[in-house]
Amino acid sequence: MNKNFKIIIEYDGTEFSGWQKQKHETTVQGEIEKALSLMLNQDIKISGSGRTDAGVHAFGQVANFHADTGIVVKDLKKGVNSLIKQPIVIRECTIINDNFHARYSAISKEYHYVILNRKDPCAIGRLYQWYIRNPLDIKVMKQCCNAITGRFDFKSFENTGSPRSSSVRNVFFADINPLDDNRFVFKICANGFLKYMVRNLMGTLVLVGLNKITVDEFEKIFKAKDRTKAGATAPAHGLFLQKVNYS
Amino acid sequence: MNKNFKIIIEYDGTEFSGWQKQKHETTVQGEIEKALSLMLNQDIKISGSGRTDAGVHAFGQVANFHADTGIVVKDLKKGVNSLIKQPIVIRECTIINDNFHARYSAISKEYHYVILNRKDPCAIGRLYQWYIRNPLDIKVMKQCCNAITGRFDFKSFENTGSPRSSSVRNVFFADINPLDDNRFVFKICANGFLKYMVRNLMGTLVLVGLNKITVDEFEKIFKAKDRTKAGATAPAHGLFLQKVNYS
Repeated sequence: MNKNFKIIIEYDGTEFSGWQKQKHETTVQGEIEKALSLMLNQDIKISGSGRTDAGVHAFGQVANFHADTGIVVKDLKKGVNSLIKQPIVIRECTIINDNFHARYSAISKEYHYVILNRKDPCAIGRLYQWYIRNPLDIKVMKQCCNAITGRFDFKSFENTGSPRSSSVRNVFFADINPLDDNRFVFKICANGFLKYMVRNLMGTLVLVGLNKITVDEFEKIFKAKDRTKAGATAPAHGLFLQKVNYS
Repeated sequence: MNKNFKIIIEYDGTEFSGWQKQKHETTVQGEIEKALSLMLNQDIKISGSGRTDAGVHAFGQVANFHADTGIVVKDLKKGVNSLIKQPIVIRECTIINDNFHARYSAISKEYHYVILNRKDPCAIGRLYQWYIRNPLDIKVMKQCCNAITGRFDFKSFENTGSPRSSSVRNVFFADINPLDDNRFVFKICANGFLKYMVRNLMGTLVLVGLNKITVDEFEKIFKAKDRTKAGATAPAHGLFLQKVNYS
């Protein structure tokens, strides 16, 4: 019987050419499809909640796929996890109603971005955080987080190249807080994200934190709806797709 | 003028064949000596507080070296950190009295060992923790920690191969506690450590935590002074040399 499966996936993005399947590259989607197809003895295509770029990690990426099988979900999860040699782990596998689609059914997604803020560069954990040498002023970065919370046009923080009908997104929350002695974590939850949106926001927020631009200037950049006004794109390796929410 | 320099070093041990210099392998000591020799234009030999095995990490390894130079320590640190391309970072560099020796002056060392304890294997951070699937009973592991605190012969937890006059060591503290939702950290501080001592202790402590052996059996193994009685050696990648203490 054909069933719709929902999977929640953790992966270390370091070694992957991103989420989306590509012919000659190792990708998260490609590796999972390979394992599922082998396990279920049929050609499996999975739909992710969205792409993540090369180097971006995920604690809670979600995907779904249809398969004609009588396998118990517990065994499916266990089997796939032992088949995949790459740093990809299926955290949950459930059978869900036929209408569920990992991308179109999602109501919001949460990303985290981790910054190491200390004088010395880092050795341990360097692929999970962005190293910023000069001290960040978190107070002004928090003011910017307030300014982007709500329904706005995020065109200034969008890279070209992805098809979308509108660049308006609804940010449910955005905040930056200490994670430990010398790390900060920026958390943002929205109904959707434009291409490189979190990394572009992060790159510009850091300019504010370093007092290179003011909160007022940040807001002007935001309202300009012009990508060329904003800061550089923050590196991929500090970014984590934390959670995808469904109703 | 010849001076004695003390450096505190962080490194990600994943890619190294351990601390100690070897002819045809990339080692932490080898990389630091190469950078220092280049920077100071003289042949530099550093003395570490002790070796760490391949895959073992350090937040606070300590070494010292003698050099004839007028360089400011701040510039030395900065220069070495920019010369070393590997995940090694000099966290501190100071000039210290001539008698100081990173190994012989040390009064104690602290190691941490991180365990991920959850059903699913791990993708993110997998090179910084030991994955244990079945739930660990921390209460009984804590009892074992109490049993090893004090001055004892640790022969049961020593691998052969390192010269030492005695296998008696003084453990100042040993404890295991939650680190977050699904991780535990075992912390141990002693006046010295035998070869593989922390990893052998960890391997046997986990047997207790999994209820494969009792606390009584652990104590019997400990008192047997016989390595063949104890559990397997825990993997290197969960281990961190946290700190070396001097008077």
